Amino acid sequence: MDIGGANTKAARLHEGTMTTLTRPFEVWRDRGALATVLRELATETGPADSVAITMTAELSDAFRTKREGVAFVLDAAEDALGSPRVLTTAGELVSLEAARARPLDVAAANWMATALMVASAHPDALLIDIGSTTTDIVPIAGGRVAARGRTDLDRLLAGELVYTGVLRTNLAAIAPRVPVGGAWSPVASEQFAISADVHLVLGRLEAYDCPTPDGRPATVELARERIARLVCADTEQLSADAIDAIAAFLYGEQLRQIEEAAGRHALPPTAHVVAVGAGGAMGREVAGRLGRAVAEVPWNGPAAALAALLAC
Amino acid sequence: MDIGGANTKAARLHEGTMTTLTRPFEVWRDRGALATVLRELATETGPADSVAITMTAELSDAFRTKREGVAFVLDAAEDALGSPRVLTTAGELVSLEAARARPLDVAAANWMATALMVASAHPDALLIDIGSTTTDIVPIAGGRVAARGRTDLDRLLAGELVYTGVLRTNLAAIAPRVPVGGAWSPVASEQFAISADVHLVLGRLEAYDCPTPDGRPATVELARERIARLVCADTEQLSADAIDAIAAFLYGEQLRQIEEAAGRHALPPTAHVVAVGAGGAMGREVAGRLGRAVAEVPWNGPAAALAALLAC
Repeated sequence: MDIGGANTKAARLHEGTMTTLTRPFEVWRDRGALATVLRELATETGPADSVAITMTAELSDAFRTKREGVAFVLDAAEDALGSPRVLTTAGELVSLEAARARPLDVAAANWMATALMVASAHPDALLIDIGSTTTDIVPIAGGRVAARGRTDLDRLLAGELVYTGVLRTNLAAIAPRVPVGGAWSPVASEQFAISADVHLVLGRLEAYDCPTPDGRPATVELARERIARLVCADTEQLSADAIDAIAAFLYGEQLRQIEEAAGRHALPPTAHVVAVGAGGAMGREVAGRLGRAVAEVPWNGPAAALAALLAC
Repeated sequence: MDIGGANTKAARLHEGTMTTLTRPFEVWRDRGALATVLRELATETGPADSVAITMTAELSDAFRTKREGVAFVLDAAEDALGSPRVLTTAGELVSLEAARARPLDVAAANWMATALMVASAHPDALLIDIGSTTTDIVPIAGGRVAARGRTDLDRLLAGELVYTGVLRTNLAAIAPRVPVGGAWSPVASEQFAISADVHLVLGRLEAYDCPTPDGRPATVELARERIARLVCADTEQLSADAIDAIAAFLYGEQLRQIEEAAGRHALPPTAHVVAVGAGGAMGREVAGRLGRAVAEVPWNGPAAALAALLAC
């Protein structure tokens, strides 16, 4: 299980078949319900000989510190799952007791699950996992995970965590200004529109798997209205073409930010990019810009990677 | 009355005394209650010979277009206040019927109320009104409001509207990276902390007049926890000094953005800056950077300016 701040994912590997389930659950809304959510997910995915967890939920502002968040998640996991193993940022599976003793080593470790899976299939590769909110970029060298950062902060500094994604990213945080009618307009610092709106109007979105900022449906027309608000405008003031030009610019900015971070990792030219996550298509586009071929892995997502790791 | 998206303000001028009231009311939460809020505010401020309104609430994503938002606000105002006059972005007070006929001319006009008040006191001046969320920068020349933009979009483009303020601005939208331990960290694109947190830890905030992003109290200690989360960290990982350095950088970035926009307006060197709004102190700091003296006006806020205008 991959216990995130907005979604919790479960994966079960049984006789070579992977079953995965995702449950939207925003931990800050009702943290007391986490154990119940985990228990229900465990029941739905089916019985398992062993269970492992990883988490990012501890970063939620439901918790004052990561230490408090990790302790809370571990308690809920014990309550719901018995004695699951817990993944560390060093790639080990440790006991609940060991995890409790070193909470900062199990915080935000889910990228490591995917990285270990990639390393087992491709000894030299660049993992680009573009998710709903964040992007993990992890170099794999000589069959080992060659990441420099372990904490989220160190990973931000190292270009291994880029806080941009294909669904929930606030457009006001992607770029300080956008093109409007041949000029550059500063943006309104509100939560008027998100990256899902941009990817939707550009025809690049597989599924709008999160709430819309204004609570209206996830249609192209309404997404354009949300994007227009980014420059304090509406669809009477801005044409569909003008709005789509803003969307195209912001998509390009996301691409540029990910490419820039990915380009910081020195790898042999033969190393392929493994592009996974909700933004897999965007990851393959980054690979093209980097001049790298793309390779595949058997499973998608940290929960599935963790299940595969546990079964080894 | 100044009907905003997050606050509605009423001011009454009676025998030279101005009474002002502010009611927090987020129109997108319960737009149906707007008429009631206006009626209650009118009762609390006391009887008036005439009433005028201005608005910014139409930008809220409670409304699909400005036209829809203006019509809604005008209906609520008629319901609650009878036949108030309505300020246009040209500085005229028109009837409700005239406002209904030209909704885009009365949308987001509240900056004009303040600008007219400044112009009547200072024929050459630069109005800098730093509010909770946005900053209005309006040149006054020869006793006239010399703004180039009328709509919010045109005002953004002209450097007359800067979407930054002392309370509600999401820190992730102020700067794409912040200094951490001698390096630059990209920021987490979430709503973890707002400008009120920055101004609070720097000792520059008069009042934390808005909800905190995490729902915890508005103390310096908890504001530091919120700011640490901007780089996916917590107060175990970052010292108070390190967090305050991030805050100081972001304050400086806000100052720089406002100064840059203010510097675009060519005015005689003798023109003073009139700094008003919740961020008045910050506005005076901008004046100092521009090498301009500071002048005062009798009233603070568009509602009071509108009452004064109506009484002329």
